[in-house]
Amino acid sequence: MLHDIPHPYLIYAGHAVDALDVKTGMGLVEWRPNWCGGQWRESESVYDLRLPDMTPTAARAAGMTTMVIGVAEFGGRLTDGLKAAVAEAIAAGLNVASGLHDRLNADPDLARAARQAGVHLFDVRGLPPGAQPPVASGRRRTGRRLLTVGTDCAVGKKFTALSLERDLHAAGRSATFRATGQTGVLISGGGVAIDAVAADFLAGVVEQMTPDNMSDHWDIVEGQGSLHHPAYAAVSLGLLHGAQPDAFVVCHEAGREAVLGYETFPLPSIGDCIELVVANGRRLNPDIRCVGVSLNCSQIRPSERAAAKRALEAEAGLPVVDPAEDGTGRLIAAMDGLR
Amino acid sequence: MLHDIPHPYLIYAGHAVDALDVKTGMGLVEWRPNWCGGQWRESESVYDLRLPDMTPTAARAAGMTTMVIGVAEFGGRLTDGLKAAVAEAIAAGLNVASGLHDRLNADPDLARAARQAGVHLFDVRGLPPGAQPPVASGRRRTGRRLLTVGTDCAVGKKFTALSLERDLHAAGRSATFRATGQTGVLISGGGVAIDAVAADFLAGVVEQMTPDNMSDHWDIVEGQGSLHHPAYAAVSLGLLHGAQPDAFVVCHEAGREAVLGYETFPLPSIGDCIELVVANGRRLNPDIRCVGVSLNCSQIRPSERAAAKRALEAEAGLPVVDPAEDGTGRLIAAMDGLR
Repeated sequence: MLHDIPHPYLIYAGHAVDALDVKTGMGLVEWRPNWCGGQWRESESVYDLRLPDMTPTAARAAGMTTMVIGVAEFGGRLTDGLKAAVAEAIAAGLNVASGLHDRLNADPDLARAARQAGVHLFDVRGLPPGAQPPVASGRRRTGRRLLTVGTDCAVGKKFTALSLERDLHAAGRSATFRATGQTGVLISGGGVAIDAVAADFLAGVVEQMTPDNMSDHWDIVEGQGSLHHPAYAAVSLGLLHGAQPDAFVVCHEAGREAVLGYETFPLPSIGDCIELVVANGRRLNPDIRCVGVSLNCSQIRPSERAAAKRALEAEAGLPVVDPAEDGTGRLIAAMDGLR
Repeated sequence: MLHDIPHPYLIYAGHAVDALDVKTGMGLVEWRPNWCGGQWRESESVYDLRLPDMTPTAARAAGMTTMVIGVAEFGGRLTDGLKAAVAEAIAAGLNVASGLHDRLNADPDLARAARQAGVHLFDVRGLPPGAQPPVASGRRRTGRRLLTVGTDCAVGKKFTALSLERDLHAAGRSATFRATGQTGVLISGGGVAIDAVAADFLAGVVEQMTPDNMSDHWDIVEGQGSLHHPAYAAVSLGLLHGAQPDAFVVCHEAGREAVLGYETFPLPSIGDCIELVVANGRRLNPDIRCVGVSLNCSQIRPSERAAAKRALEAEAGLPVVDPAEDGTGRLIAAMDGLR
């Protein structure tokens, strides 16, 4: 029922000139360098992901299996230009994976071409076509689970989860990043972007995404939104209930004081955030515990970062790390200290 | 963006022999007797809603505007028999409203016939076709709002909300029942069944459903699920945030001890339920207050009911009523006592 996208990838960078326009592609190169075999740019002036330039036909010949649309991370339309690029990839025998709001499978021309070529079109927003979403059972599963929660959107929940997976793997540990957003799905090749799932099935989809596992295995579940967010808290709660986490990390951006785009809503304190996550999360897992704080310091001066972390650590009484600077070793130590 | 279903209604009772099979039709007759002009039964042995029997053609001639499918309240398929009945209603010039899981609008034959006849097909699960769901703004609106919350599903949240509306109207007060489930939408002719809305838009849809109003007007919002439910809590939280209620009533069924279908999950106490609703609800409305408990006593003996209500009233320190026996006057008095 979840997506399962074959790699290696050809990254379509299109006409993107700025790094921000090809953010999805950059995330793929950063987190899955071995999966990225080439880039397809419409001209020499397009942002360079430092992958070999190639056409879809050349990429297929070189063993690539899927073209990922690396542009327009948050939604966006299937423009005529994009549609032509997708059609060319299909004709070359590549699957195509997309985080666009417009579904490739909903375009009759592309859907027919893909059928005829025997390739798949992956629309990672929402479930695969025809998938019957499950209702949650509430059953506890074997293995351990950690969820990255946030004081807001866009504070580093995906980055923190991917950092934890990387650092656990580096330590020889068994762990799996579980994607719940479109970029995360493309980076991991699996999971589902849950914000487009009907609310009744949200927890059930997350349960399926984090199944029974070995007792020492950690699922590292990518969080979404915030229980304190005025629009998206329902997504966060379905995720919290479905994941039944043993541990969670609160992600926060240093310097941010109000909800992005909702300036009349001050962000909760770390303590208030922990309290609300536990109040809701203990219904599905009475042992839920906060193991630390991930403080994204990218928006404050380098000279202020150490003090910001120290101050928050004193306030919260928990390890505070910026994964981009410090790694996640102290969070992992706290996870190991549970029970 | 919400449904808006014209009445009077012809109720389609089909082949339903048991009262339970025609529960939607019974709800319509109970709560909107003046909207129900006739029933269409496939034979004399079908359950009698005590409305004049008539065919779609006769109903149209008598001034009815919409045929409501009164059978198979929870989901169900568009069988060949049902499809034939819908086609006959369309041919007679009636709109058709349905709470079926299978959407009438997704059937090409019915969609075409409706277009040609100039009538509407209302699929009340989810949004009308083509509706662009909104993201919540979090903005406070004028007027007052009450939400019925629950310790579980199927405890009387819709019944309590409809009772409150009826009793407020009887007292000459301004109040509107706001439907959030399929039967409620058919009973009220408006609203939307929110369980099929993508989680990202849940609070936004509920905001639109409960807009600015006169300062002494009460929106009485039908609750769904429970924040303590292992599968459906996300729906309940989106509803709580979108409605921003000033007041809530906890609905509970006397004698029920575990979540329906989830026997390993004991129901929360009324106190725990209130605490979690306030912990989550105060983010959008800091003044949120519980005004009482609606205790559905239908499953315990009549001789035990008074004692059950007294015991719960002592435990909760709030008015406890069974709307079916006591009306909602004490809840309304508590609403009037706020601020």
